[in-house]
Amino acid sequence: MSVLVVGSTALDSIKTPKAENPRLLGGSASHAAVAASFFAPVKLIGIVGDDFPKRYVNLYRRHGIDLEGLQIVPGSTFHWAGEYEVNMNNRRTLKTELGVFETFSPKLPSAHQDVPFVLLANIAPGLQSHVLDQMRRPKFVIADTMDLWLNIALPDLLKLLPRVDAFVLNDSEARQLTKEDNIVASLKKLHRLGPKYVIVKKGEHGSLVSSPRGMFIAPAFPLGKVVDPTGAGDSFVGGLIGYLASSKGPIEANLRRAVVHGSAVASFCCEGFGLTRTTRVKRQDIDARVRQIESLVRF
Amino acid sequence: MSVLVVGSTALDSIKTPKAENPRLLGGSASHAAVAASFFAPVKLIGIVGDDFPKRYVNLYRRHGIDLEGLQIVPGSTFHWAGEYEVNMNNRRTLKTELGVFETFSPKLPSAHQDVPFVLLANIAPGLQSHVLDQMRRPKFVIADTMDLWLNIALPDLLKLLPRVDAFVLNDSEARQLTKEDNIVASLKKLHRLGPKYVIVKKGEHGSLVSSPRGMFIAPAFPLGKVVDPTGAGDSFVGGLIGYLASSKGPIEANLRRAVVHGSAVASFCCEGFGLTRTTRVKRQDIDARVRQIESLVRF
Repeated sequence: MSVLVVGSTALDSIKTPKAENPRLLGGSASHAAVAASFFAPVKLIGIVGDDFPKRYVNLYRRHGIDLEGLQIVPGSTFHWAGEYEVNMNNRRTLKTELGVFETFSPKLPSAHQDVPFVLLANIAPGLQSHVLDQMRRPKFVIADTMDLWLNIALPDLLKLLPRVDAFVLNDSEARQLTKEDNIVASLKKLHRLGPKYVIVKKGEHGSLVSSPRGMFIAPAFPLGKVVDPTGAGDSFVGGLIGYLASSKGPIEANLRRAVVHGSAVASFCCEGFGLTRTTRVKRQDIDARVRQIESLVRF
Repeated sequence: MSVLVVGSTALDSIKTPKAENPRLLGGSASHAAVAASFFAPVKLIGIVGDDFPKRYVNLYRRHGIDLEGLQIVPGSTFHWAGEYEVNMNNRRTLKTELGVFETFSPKLPSAHQDVPFVLLANIAPGLQSHVLDQMRRPKFVIADTMDLWLNIALPDLLKLLPRVDAFVLNDSEARQLTKEDNIVASLKKLHRLGPKYVIVKKGEHGSLVSSPRGMFIAPAFPLGKVVDPTGAGDSFVGGLIGYLASSKGPIEANLRRAVVHGSAVASFCCEGFGLTRTTRVKRQDIDARVRQIESLVRF
């Protein structure tokens, strides 16, 4: 089945202690759409300016991503510049130029309104709701978020949450949102905000899924070298929903393997700048990494 | 087979945001010995003063712990007082009164020198080496440590490491010792210091084992409430070596399950002050928790 991905489509200028890469393809929707495309057909909803490089349009196309919902309008594409510290966990934003993204109002082509799997990748929760308003009866909706929205758009986020099946956030965001240091206590409170499934990203420590059938704990694939973690969270959730969309049977039965497939794609994402590594990966590479993760946790 | 445990035997006064408990039984050897005792016969090597409460001697005895190697000498038992912050991860030491521990020189009774499994629980690495000097040909030696020894006794620790089979430390200590932020790179350097097995404790994020047959990643059991984490790391390594000592077959084949059994005991430790919860646990409770951990990671 198909996946609809809405989120940011951007150009990322990324600096690490080792290298500097200007104007890479980035944004939550770009990472998530490419990640999902390994498993299922993807329709992208986003906005870019008329400066958006043709090669990035081609990159989406090579991944079979439907671009009917990608608005290309006069002006500059959203540009983000950031710098990572030596440990690759802390980053600081050097520049945020919203450009045409400032006026983004997602409009769904008619064919998109019946897509069964919907990923509301990280953008303002008001826009995420606006997309849901246009959907007929999606089978499964996942919303990702970031600390920024907890700080400046919390009421919008709280309105969105009862409308989604799964909510994805990282552990510090979970603690911030629920004012609970203990993650188990935090998960309980997060379910009370609406979502049946809560998925907590813990970076190098892996991820947690809380569902009516209990908890699942998945490791991150241990990488000897992290080149650039930008987009890892988006790749994780993209791979996750792509795998779900490609699987038969109930969500609950496929969710654990979906999380591990998401982790596998996220690990590839970290091995190169922007999408440079992810776009060189084949489905069989992902499956091989899933088997490696399996052997890491088996006892 | 039997386990020899050497380490600190202390009285812990522990303050958390919720409660205060003076002069509990504590110390690395106490936690590790009780944890190991669920699986195998344990011989304890330690020192206490003549103020050491009789009820704590009885507690050791109830766990079948051989106390021939516990020196009881005139003076005060090692007393540590500490306070945890709200999130239960950060703690600060309020008081360290070494008492008779200052003059501790472990002396092994003759019957102890042939014990096959040796746990050098957290004490000064010079003392850990001094115990090894007295052992004949132990089958398996594990050394635990703490940041203090990295800071004030690094040469002693580096002399000890080639003599042990497994080295246990936490992730921040691994980074400090190897000057590597990446844990995979850090593990490589740790093996070069001598130990065949390196076990990294990551608190609520679980643990990692690096061995010639690859890596194993184990979660921590997710607790809804952490009452007191003091001794969790000692319980982990105690449960681990106890399980190994009780298992047939090669170490490598049992190590993963040993780590999970250690995690299970550590999770009980966190559910009460000092050893109050651990000492109320039965072997079947530990086995049940191991099965729960199994179901948390299966996919």
